[in-house]
Amino acid sequence: MSKLRLNITMSLDGYVAGPNQSVENPLGQGGEDLHDWLVKLQTFRALHGDASGGETGVNDDVLREAFENIGATIMGRNMFGPVRGPWDRNDPWRGWWGDDPPFGHAVFVLTHHAREPLQMQGGTTFFFVTDGIESALAQARKAANGKDVVIGGGASAVQQYLNAGLIDELEIHVVPLFLGAGARLFDNLDGRKVRVEPIRTIAGPSVTHLKYRVAK
Amino acid sequence: MSKLRLNITMSLDGYVAGPNQSVENPLGQGGEDLHDWLVKLQTFRALHGDASGGETGVNDDVLREAFENIGATIMGRNMFGPVRGPWDRNDPWRGWWGDDPPFGHAVFVLTHHAREPLQMQGGTTFFFVTDGIESALAQARKAANGKDVVIGGGASAVQQYLNAGLIDELEIHVVPLFLGAGARLFDNLDGRKVRVEPIRTIAGPSVTHLKYRVAK
Repeated sequence: MSKLRLNITMSLDGYVAGPNQSVENPLGQGGEDLHDWLVKLQTFRALHGDASGGETGVNDDVLREAFENIGATIMGRNMFGPVRGPWDRNDPWRGWWGDDPPFGHAVFVLTHHAREPLQMQGGTTFFFVTDGIESALAQARKAANGKDVVIGGGASAVQQYLNAGLIDELEIHVVPLFLGAGARLFDNLDGRKVRVEPIRTIAGPSVTHLKYRVAK
Repeated sequence: MSKLRLNITMSLDGYVAGPNQSVENPLGQGGEDLHDWLVKLQTFRALHGDASGGETGVNDDVLREAFENIGATIMGRNMFGPVRGPWDRNDPWRGWWGDDPPFGHAVFVLTHHAREPLQMQGGTTFFFVTDGIESALAQARKAANGKDVVIGGGASAVQQYLNAGLIDELEIHVVPLFLGAGARLFDNLDGRKVRVEPIRTIAGPSVTHLKYRVAK
């Protein structure tokens, strides 16, 4: 059965982005530090077109596993870009990731504003979904063709899926960092409804990888 | 050098107590569930006067270590009890822990309302400190006589000590639970000032033990 898996990096105080996200600061003030552990890894570099080295080891193993058997991605509008309101018809936002994004498959972006699919290089196509999270998941499952679907943020999109009971697995990379403000991952949750069980804990250098199954 | 060590259980969404703390619900709604992993352990039972069994293993080892070399405890008024305002002179609150609390040493309670020390059975004496967190720490260090001092909550007291740069070590027991509301441990922090480095991660059944050193 195809699973919906959350995969995200969180500060020790629970933030997945710092305050004041903008074009200059995609992850908000201080938010870039969340990904210090990530950007130096071999798997990350290879996904971003740099096949020349990078760190191997526990963290890299975990990252490689996180991308295994993934056939589609879901993200909130806030993860796709800082733009709000209707898309600019003349110069629409094309994501943070350049012409060749690291997904390599269909990406479903939750938005209130309709837009034609945006085909990028390397197999990534962004689809803009205006009829809700369940529709996005159904479309993503179909595109994934039996593989799993991953959701990577932002916080609000994750919360909607969690509260709706639609996420099957949570993988949280906890970094030893206090952001102090920003977007909290686990906010606006109904704790009586969302229950999780640990699958495993892996301690890597400078980051702890927590994996949970959502109890159904 | 005597250290100030934080030792506390936190839900996956960052709470150390649920909402609506009261005499009936010391840890707020749902908050008791935070300590499910704890109350069944041999070390916990022995500390609470029950020498007859209890669970051993990884979690018990971690708990025993957490109590090693501790000579005094600091807590906020909110951890000592639900009472607010001046103490009742006729029937003052004596803590949550009965006549023989599990501390067995001097406990310094942060409060705005002066009160005579309260001597309990088993070596625990509660001292009520009205002149601030630094004074409480100085008194606790003196009482600890070379051993470490532990702070166990509540959230507000921990935040004050963290922001003042006075905590040396954090041990956070993360339980797979969403409380959804209540007292957040890592709130009101200045993330640029508080920096931590991992010491170790231990995965026990149903709880992950994260330990950090605060960078000075």
